[in-house]
Amino acid sequence: MERIDHGSVRSSNLGLILRHLRMQGGRSRARIAGGTGLSKATASTLIADLLARGLVTEGEPARDGAVGRPGLTVALDRDRVRGVGIEINADYLALVVVDLLGDVVMETTHAIDIPTRNADEALDEVADLVRPTLRAISAEGRSVVGLCVAAPGTIEAESGQVRFATNLGWRDVAVRAGLCDRLDLRPEMIVVENDAKLGSLAAYAEIARDGIHDLIYVTGDVGVGAGIIADGVLLQGHDGYAGEIGHLPLAPGEGQCPCGRTGCWELSVGLPPFLRRAAATDDPVRDSSRPLEERLGELRERALADDPRTLDALAVTGAALGYGLSLVVDVVNPRALVLGGYFPWFEEWFTRSVDDVLQARMIGHTATPVQVSVSRLGLSAAARGGALLALETVFEDPTAVGPLASPSTSVIDGPAPPRGTP
Amino acid sequence: MERIDHGSVRSSNLGLILRHLRMQGGRSRARIAGGTGLSKATASTLIADLLARGLVTEGEPARDGAVGRPGLTVALDRDRVRGVGIEINADYLALVVVDLLGDVVMETTHAIDIPTRNADEALDEVADLVRPTLRAISAEGRSVVGLCVAAPGTIEAESGQVRFATNLGWRDVAVRAGLCDRLDLRPEMIVVENDAKLGSLAAYAEIARDGIHDLIYVTGDVGVGAGIIADGVLLQGHDGYAGEIGHLPLAPGEGQCPCGRTGCWELSVGLPPFLRRAAATDDPVRDSSRPLEERLGELRERALADDPRTLDALAVTGAALGYGLSLVVDVVNPRALVLGGYFPWFEEWFTRSVDDVLQARMIGHTATPVQVSVSRLGLSAAARGGALLALETVFEDPTAVGPLASPSTSVIDGPAPPRGTP
Repeated sequence: MERIDHGSVRSSNLGLILRHLRMQGGRSRARIAGGTGLSKATASTLIADLLARGLVTEGEPARDGAVGRPGLTVALDRDRVRGVGIEINADYLALVVVDLLGDVVMETTHAIDIPTRNADEALDEVADLVRPTLRAISAEGRSVVGLCVAAPGTIEAESGQVRFATNLGWRDVAVRAGLCDRLDLRPEMIVVENDAKLGSLAAYAEIARDGIHDLIYVTGDVGVGAGIIADGVLLQGHDGYAGEIGHLPLAPGEGQCPCGRTGCWELSVGLPPFLRRAAATDDPVRDSSRPLEERLGELRERALADDPRTLDALAVTGAALGYGLSLVVDVVNPRALVLGGYFPWFEEWFTRSVDDVLQARMIGHTATPVQVSVSRLGLSAAARGGALLALETVFEDPTAVGPLASPSTSVIDGPAPPRGTP
Repeated sequence: MERIDHGSVRSSNLGLILRHLRMQGGRSRARIAGGTGLSKATASTLIADLLARGLVTEGEPARDGAVGRPGLTVALDRDRVRGVGIEINADYLALVVVDLLGDVVMETTHAIDIPTRNADEALDEVADLVRPTLRAISAEGRSVVGLCVAAPGTIEAESGQVRFATNLGWRDVAVRAGLCDRLDLRPEMIVVENDAKLGSLAAYAEIARDGIHDLIYVTGDVGVGAGIIADGVLLQGHDGYAGEIGHLPLAPGEGQCPCGRTGCWELSVGLPPFLRRAAATDDPVRDSSRPLEERLGELRERALADDPRTLDALAVTGAALGYGLSLVVDVVNPRALVLGGYFPWFEEWFTRSVDDVLQARMIGHTATPVQVSVSRLGLSAAARGGALLALETVFEDPTAVGPLASPSTSVIDGPAPPRGTP
């Protein structure tokens, strides 16, 4: 149904102006009208609405070449609202807060060993990490427009459940409901999404500046997954499982996967097989009680010092990575491949391995070579992508944020105090 | 740039009304306004414009529950314009003409042996097939809104060139320019696109009625390719090569492919290896001078009569088909797989083989089973998809069709007579 009511036409035009300002930066009302196709009168009315909601500010006279008396510059007000992203991974939680421009204003990670806890305990820890942040945002007079939770595995977005996350040991965990209870939030405030998909949104926000809109982002931890951006849109798939490439049957020698299949690709290119190839069982880099960054840093030092076992592990893993990614490249024809997860610690080796396979498999002279790079966003890429996704609510429908005078009914203006508090 | 000028707002609203009528069928002005979010006054003005262009008609008083005196029913006029699709394949040309509702009004195939001709001769034959059709449409007082040419291989859509079509023996053939010359058409009238992509549009037009919007259409002839529809949108990829799955490196034993790679999947699941498996060299079903439909029909009879060699060929080919498609399914998570090309002749065997592999590889209970079926559109699926794509021009911008009184400047109202004609 292409049914559009008048209210939604208004909110979609409000969103059009916000997105225009995000893309073009601050400018006069006349140029906003010109750039969006709205009449000047309509644009002025809508801008007054956005000013009342605190989503834009009015500044200096604009010297932007519009005809007539210069108007005042209208620009996004980055500070009225915040988007919050949280990543739940097997060995850490990450929390990222972004402002309306998408810039990170807060970022933290927290070591945790999820598989040794039950899901309820894990969600307690997530809530404990998030709660003070929500309070602090509220205390500053800002509103959280949404909370987006990243998890590795298959997600049922509609119900906000993690259906199957082998590496957390989770099956059918109601993350949204669990966090609604613990943080006293309404369900529509919380989105749950796959970590690789959200990582790809964060990577896309960076790479879009280079004019790249077709992208595969690959994350590698215990599991391996991809987020596929096609013509600027995140590929979801019918059940939301597009990009579940960790279970491609490309490693027949690797035996049984916890997913039930055999020979899954992540058994060959995930972090555990790489560590096994690189070091003996009792090597400190395989001690999972130590922070992952530290262990990866040590392995990187060994590779730079030409340690043969490390280099061999990189070569074997890199070749398998290149082979699998070349298949995905054939299917979706991206402009760029971005390696996240543990791959960036070994940038020189993995980008070359992948490049080599892709180059060897170019068909004639026909396709643009794929640009292979590593993510600079570290382990909190998915949390950052989550925070950005949470923010999209406002760009889709700015009326989700109430006028400054009357508190909004659609955003979190600080969570309610914990139950039982007097 | 989100620049929208007022002319384009008008044409986009005209398109909105046309698409609304396509989806909802004929209805009163009041309901059109309600269903599109346009004001009644605006909707009436725009409908008057569409009436003047002959794209809609006014009929009986509408009894559709709108309040007040019943208005007249406004509906698409299927007969003012036509979309034309042509498929160039190694052994046949197909031509399909559709009306504004997307219904086929003319369909023809023409046997040809492209690899034995040079590209200029082939384009001569294409032009000879198309020319009388364009004249006939014009003689009926209708307008062709566009011509879309399907070819197997990698296409550079922008320049209208076939870059690389192994099975035609073509490299860098300027199809658009060649047909513009021969048919005396303006370049913007001709679109060139990959056959599997266009086949997927035709398959999608059918299956969308069942509410399916995530689809992989696979075509199999000498080459194998896919068109991927994700959330209702055809996946293009950065160079337009998304879905080029025929060259996945999944058949290591099959040696060199004309594309330059080795072990390409189509060497194992394309028509030639299937025929080789199914019949001896001197078997009449391998005589490529005979019509393909006839030979496939004979092989189908043998399979139904339990001929062991045919059944074995179907089993081997089906397993390889299932394996490759299961990889593509993992990457894009479709709701449905539609097998086109030669596969439909062996529906029972191939759908079961593919189903078996997909079922065996389901991860837990998480994903909706993929619906596997064959295309009913025969060998002209790509031509039909091309005709539908040509039609989209009108739904995007109805002002491409001129008012009935003054001849349009943007559509073909019959081609100019061949040069040299007095």
